[in-house]
Formats: sequence, C-alpha cells, structure tokens
Amino acid sequence: MKTLIKNSHILTMDEKRTEYSEGYLIIEDRIILEIGSYDQLIQKEIDFDEVIDGHHTITIPGMINTHTHIGMIPFRSLGDDCPDRLHRVLFPLEIACMTKELAYHSGKYAIAEMQLAGITTFTDMYYFEDALAQATDEMKSRAILGETVVDFPTCDTPIAHGGIDYAKKFIPKWLNHELITPAIAPHAPNTNDPESLKAAAALAEEYGVPMTMHIAEMDYEMNHFSEKYNATPIAFLQSIGVLSPRLIAAHCIHLSDQDLQILKKEGVGVAHCIGANTKSAKGIARIKDMLELSIPVGLGTDGPSSGNTLDLFTQMKLVANFHKTNLHDRSIFPAKEIVAMATIEGAKVLNMANQIGSLEVGKRADIVLVETTSVNMFPIFDAYAALVYSANASNVQDAFINGTSVVRNKKLVNNDLSALRSNLAAEMTFFSKKAKELT
Amino acid sequence: MKTLIKNSHILTMDEKRTEYSEGYLIIEDRIILEIGSYDQLIQKEIDFDEVIDGHHTITIPGMINTHTHIGMIPFRSLGDDCPDRLHRVLFPLEIACMTKELAYHSGKYAIAEMQLAGITTFTDMYYFEDALAQATDEMKSRAILGETVVDFPTCDTPIAHGGIDYAKKFIPKWLNHELITPAIAPHAPNTNDPESLKAAAALAEEYGVPMTMHIAEMDYEMNHFSEKYNATPIAFLQSIGVLSPRLIAAHCIHLSDQDLQILKKEGVGVAHCIGANTKSAKGIARIKDMLELSIPVGLGTDGPSSGNTLDLFTQMKLVANFHKTNLHDRSIFPAKEIVAMATIEGAKVLNMANQIGSLEVGKRADIVLVETTSVNMFPIFDAYAALVYSANASNVQDAFINGTSVVRNKKLVNNDLSALRSNLAAEMTFFSKKAKELT
Ligand SMILES: [Zn+2]
Ligand SMILES: [Zn+2]
Repeated sequence: MKTLIKNSHILTMDEKRTEYSEGYLIIEDRIILEIGSYDQLIQKEIDFDEVIDGHHTITIPGMINTHTHIGMIPFRSLGDDCPDRLHRVLFPLEIACMTKELAYHSGKYAIAEMQLAGITTFTDMYYFEDALAQATDEMKSRAILGETVVDFPTCDTPIAHGGIDYAKKFIPKWLNHELITPAIAPHAPNTNDPESLKAAAALAEEYGVPMTMHIAEMDYEMNHFSEKYNATPIAFLQSIGVLSPRLIAAHCIHLSDQDLQILKKEGVGVAHCIGANTKSAKGIARIKDMLELSIPVGLGTDGPSSGNTLDLFTQMKLVANFHKTNLHDRSIFPAKEIVAMATIEGAKVLNMANQIGSLEVGKRADIVLVETTSVNMFPIFDAYAALVYSANASNVQDAFINGTSVVRNKKLVNNDLSALRSNLAAEMTFFSKKAKELT
Repeated sequence: MKTLIKNSHILTMDEKRTEYSEGYLIIEDRIILEIGSYDQLIQKEIDFDEVIDGHHTITIPGMINTHTHIGMIPFRSLGDDCPDRLHRVLFPLEIACMTKELAYHSGKYAIAEMQLAGITTFTDMYYFEDALAQATDEMKSRAILGETVVDFPTCDTPIAHGGIDYAKKFIPKWLNHELITPAIAPHAPNTNDPESLKAAAALAEEYGVPMTMHIAEMDYEMNHFSEKYNATPIAFLQSIGVLSPRLIAAHCIHLSDQDLQILKKEGVGVAHCIGANTKSAKGIARIKDMLELSIPVGLGTDGPSSGNTLDLFTQMKLVANFHKTNLHDRSIFPAKEIVAMATIEGAKVLNMANQIGSLEVGKRADIVLVETTSVNMFPIFDAYAALVYSANASNVQDAFINGTSVVRNKKLVNNDLSALRSNLAAEMTFFSKKAKELT
C-alpha cells in the first residue's frame, strides 16, 4: 500500500524544523518513504494506491498525549468546580461503579476522541488495563498502557497494591504488540509504600517497559514527604532507586532546584498537563527551567474529568498563555516550541523518538492533516501560530497511525462514533445514578 | 413568523438561572414569546412556521463579545510572539495598508466567524467604522461600533484625533438602526490628549451613545500617568470627568483598590479579555474583586491578532483556569458564573440587559443552540461545565439574532463563507506583501 499526500504545508518537526510550504509525503505500509517539496516529486500519481490532495492543510506528526486516563470518560463534567474532588467524587465512584466493561467502552470512546483530535500516541494510567489494551488494539492507536498500583483495594483488585500482580500477567501478555507497550503505573509517591514503588520499578526493569506516575502534583503530597522524610517526593524517589529514563513523570508541579537536577541526572521525562493543573488551581510547573536543563517535556491532557477534553490544541494554547504570563514575557515559548512539545518532545519523553514524533524518512507513518478552510484558520502567516493560537480539535481532517488511515475527512474510518457512544452510554446506567447521588 | 425550538436543554441565564432540561422556546418575529418546560407547551406544532428539534442541544442566550476589532482579520497569526508588536507590526501596517475596502471585507469575515461561534452581539473599536457598520448591517449582527480616536494620523484620517470629526458624521448616520449602536472609541488614555478624551465623552453624551476605550492595559501606560500626573489612568480619567456608565472599559488589568472604587462609583463596565491579556504577558485583571463590588464584567476576544479567534468558548476556559490558579482555589469562578459573564453580564456592561443577555419573555430573540453530539460533548452531568470546559466554537449549531436565523446546522444562512474569504483574500494582496517584509 502506497499513499501520496501532496500539496500540503508540511511541518516535519525534525531537528532543523524543516518546513515544506508545498510539500509531499509518501507512506509505504507503516513507514514514511519520502518527504520533500512537491516540485521535487519524481513518481507519477498513477504509481500510488491513493493520493490525498493536501491543498489548504497543514501536515504535522501525529500528536502525542503523554498522560491520560482513557477509562474516565464517564466522569466528564462531574463536580468540576468541587474542592478535593479526587477524594469526594472520583475515588468513591471508581470503587463503586467502575467495571472492566465500562473501562473498555470508555477506552474506545476516548481513543476515538483522541484520533479525531490528531493524537496518534498516548500514555495511559488506569485500571483494567487489559481491557484497555483490547480497546487500543481494536482502535489501532499507538499507546503506552500502565496498570495502576495504589495502596488501597480498587475496582480491579481486592487488595492494596494489587496492580503489581495484575501487571505481572498484563505486561508479558502485550509485550510484543506492534502498537501497544504495556507498562506499570504507581498512582503517586504518597499513595504507594516504598516497597510497592520498588517492586513496580523492578518489574518495569525486568521487562524493559516504561513506568509512569503522578509526581509532585498535590500540596498534601509535598507535605507528606516533607514531614515524613524531610525530603521532596523526587528526592525520596531517587533515594529508593526508582527514578530512571523509563519513568514518565506526570505533572511535576512543585519542584525545587535540586529536584530539577535529579530529574536531569536520572534522565526522567515529564508529562506537562497545564490544563488539568490550572483548572484545579494546583499550580504551574517549571517547564522553562526543565527545558533549559534539557529535561524532555511533553504535553498531556490528563483524564477527561481533569482536562476536560482529550486534545492537545486546548493544551497548546494554555501552555503559551500560562507560561508567557507567569514569566512576564510574550516572546517566550513561541508557537514552534509548543508544537514541538506536542510532537517530537513528547516522543522523547516516551523514549520513542527513534520511531515517532517527527516526519522523517524511515519513521513510522503517524501523520495528521489539519484543514485551514474553517473560519478560524485564515489568514495564516505562520503555520505554527495557527496551530497553537487559532486551531481547535475540530480542524483535524485526517489521521494516520502506523500507516493506517484512522480519520478521514473528520470521521473515524473503521468505527462509528455514535455506536461507540451508545455502547458507552448503555454501560453507564449504574454509574450515572451513583454519580447524581454523590454530586 | 413564529418558530418553535423544542426539546432542548435551555439555560435561560435569567436572574434565577432557570434551567429547563427539556425546554421549549417560541420566537415571534424579533421577540421571545414563550419559554418553558416542553411538557407545558399548549400550542400544536402545526401552529408554527418552523419547528427546530433541539434534542441533543443546549440552548443559551446569544453570546456577547464586549471587545474586539473586526477590521483586523488580516493581522491574524502575524508576529504573535514578537515583543512590542503593537508598535513594531500593527501600527505601521495599519497606516501603510488599511483601507476602507479591506476593513469592510475583514469586518464581514469577522462577523461570520462570530456568528458561527454563537456570538450575536459585539462591541467593536476600529477605523472606517462607517464601512464596518455597513458590513454589520449586511451580516445582520447586533453591535456597538466605536470609531477610534488616537493622537496620530491614521488610515482613515490625516490628522491627529481625526476620529472625533469622523464620529460626528458617523454617529448620527447610524443612530436609529435596529441592530447597530454607533459609538466613539478613544484608543487609550495615553494615546489621546485630555482635550480629545473630553471631546469624545461630550459627543457620546450629546447623542446618548456608548464610549469604549482600552484602559490600564500597558505597563508604559501606567508609568506615563504615574510620572506625568502622579495618578493611575482610572483616577486621571475620573479627574477630567470622562468616566460614566456609558463607558465600556477594555482590559483594566492594572487596577489599584482605589481604581476599583472609582469604577464602581462611576458605573463603568469592564470588558475582560483574558486570552489577549495573557498571550501578551500583560497580566490578569482583578475580576474577582470587581464582581465583589458589583462592577459589571463581560468577556472580550480582543482583535483576531490578539485573541486569536473570535469566540468566547476559548475565553471561558481561560477565565476558569487563570482565575482559579491565580487565586489558588479550584471552586472559585464555577462554570455557571463564567457562562453568565459571556451572556447576561456582558449585556450589563453594554447597558443592554433589558433587551438581550438572557432568554426571557419579551426580550430580543438572540439565541444559540450548541450541539452535544460531537465527541467532546459526552457525557454531560452539568451543562454549564460542558460549555466552559468541553465545548469549542465548532459545537455551535444554530444562531438567531433579533429573531433572524443567521446560522443553521453550522453554516451561515445568508452568506457563503468561502466567498467572504476569497473577497477578503483578494483585498489583502498589498497588505500581505508588506506584512511579510515587516516580519
Ligand atoms: Zn492523571
Ligand atoms: Zn483591543
């Protein structure tokens, strides 16, 4: 199968940030075979199985969502402005109502939402990850899927830290999948004991898979480590030996200068979730300082109850406005850097930059076309600025994952959104009843 | 002409914030004739000229954009991350390239963008307001249109403060229009001399029309008044007698406690432009303090080069996240209050709350239906939260202004967007050439 995309404004996001204002790109099977200026194309259109005219589009690498919870679509718009929602709404509902089936249907819906928004790779942390792996496999997205470990019984295990045992079966089962990388996900440093954190890290090491964890997100987390260990969460995690380049650290809002040095030394990448962090008034992570130390930083939506949408356009705008204002400098975090965070820098966080994150010959064909015909997309003097400041998820026209077309003309190719929705709605009956009682 | 909207989740935004989860609304000519719970509807469907099935929609009052510059579409995505862009890019390009024709075509395009985003009323400040009034009249939007006054020659006048003379013809010409309220718009306190500010206020008083002005937006504006008058801009404006309830004050980022008291005493309303203010790193206005003093606060997109899109969904999300984070409280500015700022509170800023801003019997039929079938709009436990945290402009399905259908099924009713765009593009040839030279 050979596909030609022609006549599009291509932002490769390669190291030189090469742009082709009228570019072409050839996909052969899973791979990017050629990319360049359209006037340099040698082959004839008849040589291709399919030709996509990219006039009035911007082509970018598939976007990478470095942190989300795809099982949590049912929670969207529930108690958004409620103090300590995690303990008052989320944890109780999860224990009472979350099932394998609900997680599965939520996962499929969430993946559809991401594909329609141009996200081709995501990192998940949730329960019933085996069901979510099945959903991901069926939807044909690329993902790192981390089974949660937490110090209380949850919807998918009757014992504290039961996620470790779950992961011991889950990881080997999915280890050789083309698109899925199984992983382990301790919920947070303060919701695990040191032994379970070490066990999780050892398991990740044993199988050579990622680990992901919420870190330095909560005020009470900081207090906990300060009081109990006279340390920051980051320093504590280093002291027990669980930091490594395998770790995808979500949030990292409250970091000391020393914490930054530790992240750099240990090679940890950060999933920056500006939307979730600021909606919940938790604070603004020190991304500028991280980037100056060459700590990899990608963007994350967090879950649909925190974010609330699973798209990175919303996040890109927030990154620009929050960091410019926080640092009193309108020229800081220019649009090009922010698009990089949503693509190639996210790939670095996931240790997948050799495969995805930029449009380069030999890389996997994870590709997104954003249309510029909608009213919000004119004029365009700077394609990066248009993506960051003007675009929204509805401008995504086409998406390819691993060479497979998953979105075409703003519609899912192999799935019917309304069916995904009614399946999920049908599973949500008990959840919705309980949710209304609680809020 | 009698139209029935049935079966929609209606947020009236009346004083009690009445909601009808399955509501109906009857439009007769320009007016809302009835509103209520659908099971209380007495008339038969056959009694109506048109019936709109609002299943899977949220109906809200038409949104009100309290501050924009509709002539500035050509500037979008130009020099977004450039320091002091106003003097380096915007002013020089305006003087070199802005014409009556370009402003007119930009205006039509900008109004189309707003209608498609559910904005039915806007306040504009620009040049060639007579051409923009013509554009507004043709597009059938409701607007306050303010001719700019500034202390240097501009694209529409060869003399400093020439906008005063322009307005003396412009205001009486459009004074009795059904949808257009002409106005005068001194650019800012520091870009006008005291005499021109007084002359503008006197003209507004003479004709009983609004005045609008950028106030307390710039660091150098604050320094100017501090050094020259040992006063804030607000205190200075009060001292020369130009503050009144007629004034729509845009931005008001840098206000002292005394400034807040002055705004309250003088009855001034504020156009809060969080997106523009934070993208340019200017700061975060003290909206919480304003609301506690009952100073009316509406939302503004600012111009398409500042904003960068002319929709209030982007602004609503930014209002939530910025003010929650700034005040360290996730429960502050709940979604319902933010939807109010985009509707009824904006109407109060414009002194039009007796006509628009809420869905109540006898008010003008400015009505918007937001669809909830798109992937980002499920589930909905709280319709306000869905509008603020989940929705984007592309979810707007239908819009009525003064009883006239202007958007139906996400398309303009009486205009062809691609024609509006190609007309604007054709006028932009010289502008685009100059713009590329400058950036
Ligand atoms: Zn999370
Ligand atoms: Zn402005």
